[in-house]
Amino acid sequence: MRIIYDLDEMTETARGWLAGGTVGFVPTMGYLHQGHIALMQAARQECEISVASIFVNPIQFEANEELIRYPRDLARDLQLLSNARIDVVFIPRAEDLYPPDFSTYVTPSNSPWAMQQAKGFGSLIYNRGVATVITKLFQLVRPDVAYFGQKNAQQVAIVRQLVRDLNIDVEPRIQPTVRDSDGLALGSRNHFLTAAERKAASVIYRALLAGKALVDANVRNSAIIEKAMIDLLVTEPLVTLDYVKVCHPDTLSILDIVTPAAMLLVAAHIGKLHFVDNIIWLGGTNWKL
Amino acid sequence: MRIIYDLDEMTETARGWLAGGTVGFVPTMGYLHQGHIALMQAARQECEISVASIFVNPIQFEANEELIRYPRDLARDLQLLSNARIDVVFIPRAEDLYPPDFSTYVTPSNSPWAMQQAKGFGSLIYNRGVATVITKLFQLVRPDVAYFGQKNAQQVAIVRQLVRDLNIDVEPRIQPTVRDSDGLALGSRNHFLTAAERKAASVIYRALLAGKALVDANVRNSAIIEKAMIDLLVTEPLVTLDYVKVCHPDTLSILDIVTPAAMLLVAAHIGKLHFVDNIIWLGGTNWKL
Repeated sequence: MRIIYDLDEMTETARGWLAGGTVGFVPTMGYLHQGHIALMQAARQECEISVASIFVNPIQFEANEELIRYPRDLARDLQLLSNARIDVVFIPRAEDLYPPDFSTYVTPSNSPWAMQQAKGFGSLIYNRGVATVITKLFQLVRPDVAYFGQKNAQQVAIVRQLVRDLNIDVEPRIQPTVRDSDGLALGSRNHFLTAAERKAASVIYRALLAGKALVDANVRNSAIIEKAMIDLLVTEPLVTLDYVKVCHPDTLSILDIVTPAAMLLVAAHIGKLHFVDNIIWLGGTNWKL
Repeated sequence: MRIIYDLDEMTETARGWLAGGTVGFVPTMGYLHQGHIALMQAARQECEISVASIFVNPIQFEANEELIRYPRDLARDLQLLSNARIDVVFIPRAEDLYPPDFSTYVTPSNSPWAMQQAKGFGSLIYNRGVATVITKLFQLVRPDVAYFGQKNAQQVAIVRQLVRDLNIDVEPRIQPTVRDSDGLALGSRNHFLTAAERKAASVIYRALLAGKALVDANVRNSAIIEKAMIDLLVTEPLVTLDYVKVCHPDTLSILDIVTPAAMLLVAAHIGKLHFVDNIIWLGGTNWKL
């Protein structure tokens, strides 16, 4: 496994790949869990060259303390990536990606509702930070395919729109959410939960399943489905609801009536930690859970 | 000469070039003049594959009437490009580059003085429009080298910063300004000048030469140089001064003292038409005129 820290070395290496087969890329902020590893395995299986990046992107955090608090364990990450037989790990330095005179941002300007609310999560700073760093990483790594987890619906929507709007020749492939036995989606911050909070957190997935049960029972009115999800979520005092929505997965625009490809989306926080999760109804009895 | 209108065809074609030698790219808004043709010749001479684009970019115009008024002559352009033996001409459609749900912009956020003033010329809309379309064209064409004229210092500054900030693997090469016999820089809008205005327009270059004469006489105080340039410009009643500055060519930041690589910059308008021009002192007796 080759580790690249230097931007020029990454650019040169990517240039060398251009004729060498498809490149699959998994951008991460490190502190890897099995959700990330599933993305790595998809990249390995579907592409000739597999690349992961580890970069805690400072410009997508609203508050410095969030950035400082973000968990890091590079030694463990490298061991996991080596075990997953990833070809190249790109670990850029923040001062290289954002030199003092850095001033060109990629800005998703027409963000749907979910991207504008929920401070610290769906903010314009978050959107701009994600869009900018993904654009930069795509230029440096020049992948053919990039892998993202379904869990972060907002990131997925930003990336899809970004690739389309800027005509970037990269195909985003969205992989299923990996869950713990109680249904909680794996996430780098789960680790910060106390035992009681961790137990309570499973209500997020249970709320999604409550919504699913109604859809499966042919309920199509989004307001009814959202109410059932909210009613379950508020039974858990450790969990504070941010929002529950039925929306289109590509644009996050609200759907008043559930139609195939509708996403049930939950955002909540536990203490200072933000959580999102979603499931997608494909029509009939088919779901992406 | 191959003509490509379709975005997917351009993407596929560019993918095929990745292993085929260096690609030189000249983005234009059409209505080509000898300044453009000099860029084409440089691309032909220095790269294995030469590509020009013709696209009047709607999102960089402040007013719709400016966009509508922008001169177009595709048949003549294609003849000139064919004569210049360009390999591929890319003519994207506005509705393809900017579909109804288009919403991701590239935004130079920390623009220097010249980029923020002079409405209709140095505006934030212009900067964002240029940065966005150049990013998109670079993704579609995937050039190794991109050619720009020195005349439009602001565009050059935006592109340099853009390529650096977004880590785009393209080398901008800046070519000398091509001038008429009286020194007026060639431009697509010169054509709109009346005979009297056309005669008056040469004062822009004469003002630059007045500044040059002072630098050559070892004057280093920018205020003195700017005053001499302004004093000459205001003798021409048909020409309205926007600004005269001594600045750094990469950032357009103001220089109080002339040092090697300083740019003398003029922006003025004649009627509703905006003109810019500049010369760069390289040190000693060396100038880029």
